[in-house]
Amino acid sequence: MRPEFETEQFKKGLKIRREVLGGAYVDKSVASADDMTAPLQKLVTEWCWGEVWGRDTLDRRTRSFLNLAMLTALNRPHEIRLHVRGALNNGLTREEIREVILQAAIYCGVPAALDAMKVTLEVFKEFDAEAAEKK
Amino acid sequence: MRPEFETEQFKKGLKIRREVLGGAYVDKSVASADDMTAPLQKLVTEWCWGEVWGRDTLDRRTRSFLNLAMLTALNRPHEIRLHVRGALNNGLTREEIREVILQAAIYCGVPAALDAMKVTLEVFKEFDAEAAEKK
Amino acid sequence: MRPEFETEQFKKGLKIRREVLGGAYVDKSVASADDMTAPLQKLVTEWCWGEVWGRDTLDRRTRSFLNLAMLTALNRPHEIRLHVRGALNNGLTREEIREVILQAAIYCGVPAALDAMKVTLEVFKEFDAEAAEKK
Amino acid sequence: MRPEFETEQFKKGLKIRREVLGGAYVDKSVASADDMTAPLQKLVTEWCWGEVWGRDTLDRRTRSFLNLAMLTALNRPHEIRLHVRGALNNGLTREEIREVILQAAIYCGVPAALDAMKVTLEVFKEFDAEAAEKK
Amino acid sequence: MRPEFETEQFKKGLKIRREVLGGAYVDKSVASADDMTAPLQKLVTEWCWGEVWGRDTLDRRTRSFLNLAMLTALNRPHEIRLHVRGALNNGLTREEIREVILQAAIYCGVPAALDAMKVTLEVFKEFDAEAAEKK
Amino acid sequence: MRPEFETEQFKKGLKIRREVLGGAYVDKSVASADDMTAPLQKLVTEWCWGEVWGRDTLDRRTRSFLNLAMLTALNRPHEIRLHVRGALNNGLTREEIREVILQAAIYCGVPAALDAMKVTLEVFKEFDAEAAEKK
Repeated sequence: MRPEFETEQFKKGLKIRREVLGGAYVDKSVASADDMTAPLQKLVTEWCWGEVWGRDTLDRRTRSFLNLAMLTALNRPHEIRLHVRGALNNGLTREEIREVILQAAIYCGVPAALDAMKVTLEVFKEFDAEAAEKK
Repeated sequence: MRPEFETEQFKKGLKIRREVLGGAYVDKSVASADDMTAPLQKLVTEWCWGEVWGRDTLDRRTRSFLNLAMLTALNRPHEIRLHVRGALNNGLTREEIREVILQAAIYCGVPAALDAMKVTLEVFKEFDAEAAEKK
Repeated sequence: MRPEFETEQFKKGLKIRREVLGGAYVDKSVASADDMTAPLQKLVTEWCWGEVWGRDTLDRRTRSFLNLAMLTALNRPHEIRLHVRGALNNGLTREEIREVILQAAIYCGVPAALDAMKVTLEVFKEFDAEAAEKK
Repeated sequence: MRPEFETEQFKKGLKIRREVLGGAYVDKSVASADDMTAPLQKLVTEWCWGEVWGRDTLDRRTRSFLNLAMLTALNRPHEIRLHVRGALNNGLTREEIREVILQAAIYCGVPAALDAMKVTLEVFKEFDAEAAEKK
Repeated sequence: MRPEFETEQFKKGLKIRREVLGGAYVDKSVASADDMTAPLQKLVTEWCWGEVWGRDTLDRRTRSFLNLAMLTALNRPHEIRLHVRGALNNGLTREEIREVILQAAIYCGVPAALDAMKVTLEVFKEFDAEAAEKK
Repeated sequence: MRPEFETEQFKKGLKIRREVLGGAYVDKSVASADDMTAPLQKLVTEWCWGEVWGRDTLDRRTRSFLNLAMLTALNRPHEIRLHVRGALNNGLTREEIREVILQAAIYCGVPAALDAMKVTLEVFKEFDAEAAEKK
């Protein structure tokens, strides 16, 4: 690991980030970091994951709900994809994720909900395929 | 009440809307409805409140979390104001609302969080003043 | 059809939705609905199409103009694609659609207009190919 | 008038802008232009009004519909205020403006519609007050 | 100062934040911090100001340009107000700020530019009044 | 070239646009213009490039900084791609582009920064491949 990644805050963040988004995906991002991408990797891991996701007042389930809601409103399909996966890892049921999208239809508008649903269904398919492979 | 408000769906929605946002505020919106505003009042009460807030899969606490997150992302201070109030009515603590704003700082950006905090603090002051009056 | 789709409002909405977006596309969405997607299909068909598109005050041509304008502002290319098709079905000329995009360049910014133009040209090509096939 | 305002394109745009938004408001913006604001006044008058609003393919009524839709989606209350006024000047009825807001509730989300309705009602009141004064 | 503010990163950030936004404004935000607002104050001061504004690759003038551009696009008038002030403190001329707004008219749309101009002119007036007072 | 492209303003804009975005890309857009796309090509070339990019108060380096910031905030990956290329042509270093993205992480949110980084890295790869080919 790069020397600037050797902080307590980074390690704390990395642990949470791996647990939520999956070890393989996160390890790849961190291992491939170069001078161009390392400062953003550091910022995201320390600040987003170590600082905010590491706070106790909300549990991870609630934080996953918040992220799905915000990312749908913000129109960020790449991140929705990651955080639907994170939501499943954090114990949300598929029905609960569906309800977030329904509520987003009202507050963010129907196109936001349809776009989020499209990405979500793709993640569910990937999960099913991965589960089938493991058998 | 206007005749188009006399549906089962409207009554169901009105009950939930009053419980979440407060009876006085909602009754005023409904009572003042005229030909210009009634169709939107009907749409919001039946669909948003009767249909989506009325679904069982998520409890009201979770729906309040989602709304605070979405409204902060969407940059809608009038609605944040109403739904901070709704969140307190639905049992969120002030610390939990603070955490939503912190998480929004990461995903929606610092200006979104600062704007949401400003409105939230104003609602807390109003609540304290109302509580002091009741004593 | 699923039992929850057997309402008057759904049937009314489905008819309009098919006429605007095309029967094949809509039938596929409805037929493939499962427990994950059915509530959103129901919401969209009843609320968006039955309730709002079903209102008389504006004709479908005007509603298509509004949708192209809003979807360009909202940065939702999947929906722009559907509603360029809908606009052509509702009788807008290609020149009229072009004018919406030009006006969007002013109010939503040049990148919004360029992105909408890109999707629009793709739909026009699809239409031309479909017309050529039918001959 | 400032020398850089003496172009054919500016005069063409100014005429349309005055007819849509009202002469008093526009004359004030143009007359008060200084080195800070003149380039933006010039850009808006020549480009937005002379170039785009001056095109023939869409009539002014349709352009008002488009603007109300886009400005609601873009969350720009100052401009909604001006263009509700412009819409009334261009012959839209209050019921037609209401329908734009209802359709925006679906596509832009309920908070966008409620915010637009609030501003719209204020403009209607101003119009009624001005009409009462003229009697 | 609260104990959680006693970090090196906070002190570094506070120094830069005071230099850019003005000492009086920042000191008030920090001094008034309570359990509700302190975590966000800490996050903003350490990460936004200590970490990102504290990096060497871009000078403060360039960072002010970036902020004016982003905040105009993001539709955040409270923050535009602060950062027009910051831009003047960082040595941007009024003409340079005007040019940012003109470029935003093209890319973010005319309403974004007009809204930003409105706030900017108010800040310039405040600056002139403060300068007149000091004489 | 189409007759409506034969204005002084268009030629001025075309020259700047070619220098910033690259001659091959721009020539293709202009040469392929038909009745559908020509008015937008004309609007963009004359107003965006001839009028605003052609102004003296800001140099092209600064305008590239502004564009990267705005386009990241506006969530427009196609345009980010073009303007990362433009930024390199205007002399920004890769480190400077990285810093824009880091600052956007704070103000526009982490997902905006991650999406912009993704596109930026792709452009850097293309540049490297083109440089390798030329050898």
